[in-house]
Amino acid sequence: MADSINTDKPRELIASDRVEGTAVYNLNGERLGTITSFMVDKRSGQAEYAVMQFGGFLGIGADHYPVPWQKLTYSTDHGGYVVDLDKDTLEAAPRYGHDDDAPEYNADYDRSVNTYYGLGA
Amino acid sequence: MADSINTDKPRELIASDRVEGTAVYNLNGERLGTITSFMVDKRSGQAEYAVMQFGGFLGIGADHYPVPWQKLTYSTDHGGYVVDLDKDTLEAAPRYGHDDDAPEYNADYDRSVNTYYGLGA
Repeated sequence: MADSINTDKPRELIASDRVEGTAVYNLNGERLGTITSFMVDKRSGQAEYAVMQFGGFLGIGADHYPVPWQKLTYSTDHGGYVVDLDKDTLEAAPRYGHDDDAPEYNADYDRSVNTYYGLGA
Repeated sequence: MADSINTDKPRELIASDRVEGTAVYNLNGERLGTITSFMVDKRSGQAEYAVMQFGGFLGIGADHYPVPWQKLTYSTDHGGYVVDLDKDTLEAAPRYGHDDDAPEYNADYDRSVNTYYGLGA
């Protein structure tokens, strides 16, 4: 995507190692957890998933949840990302435990996570 | 290493904290240095710059060089990124020393780096 610099609304850049650790909130402004890392398309450089960790909020474990980047909205007010996901959605969402258990993000996994969140085909 | 057969060319994802540390090569396959981090558009999630550190290669200091992501090509052979940049280009390129000296990536800086590399307007 060669989106060149838009003078009207300058893009806001953040260092990759600062995205890691950024807080995530729900629509009510409650802090759900943090982004531990994100999955990037090697070639295009497009972030496709934020991997979120929820600190046992509402009984949801501290697992890693890959959430499609499109589901995130950056909130200047919060200084973090807002996701419109409810407890039921998260409870059944694709996840894994430790970082070492991270799945291979191959085409099948990619498709299955996107499908879960109602994206892609 | 199993060579993957590329049929449909699914996107290949890599964790953000694994991009950090990925090697960078020149067109001759010489290792120039590594990506220390990358700058991402907060909202779109698009990587706009790779911040590279060159370990004193060819007399170029170990400074941090923000290079537009479009200048990078991922090479499966190298397992890293290839940049088509010669010594003269790098010697005069925008850079900063320590991480703490990182500039604010505001619209002006953004434009100036892009212009240096002949991108954007």
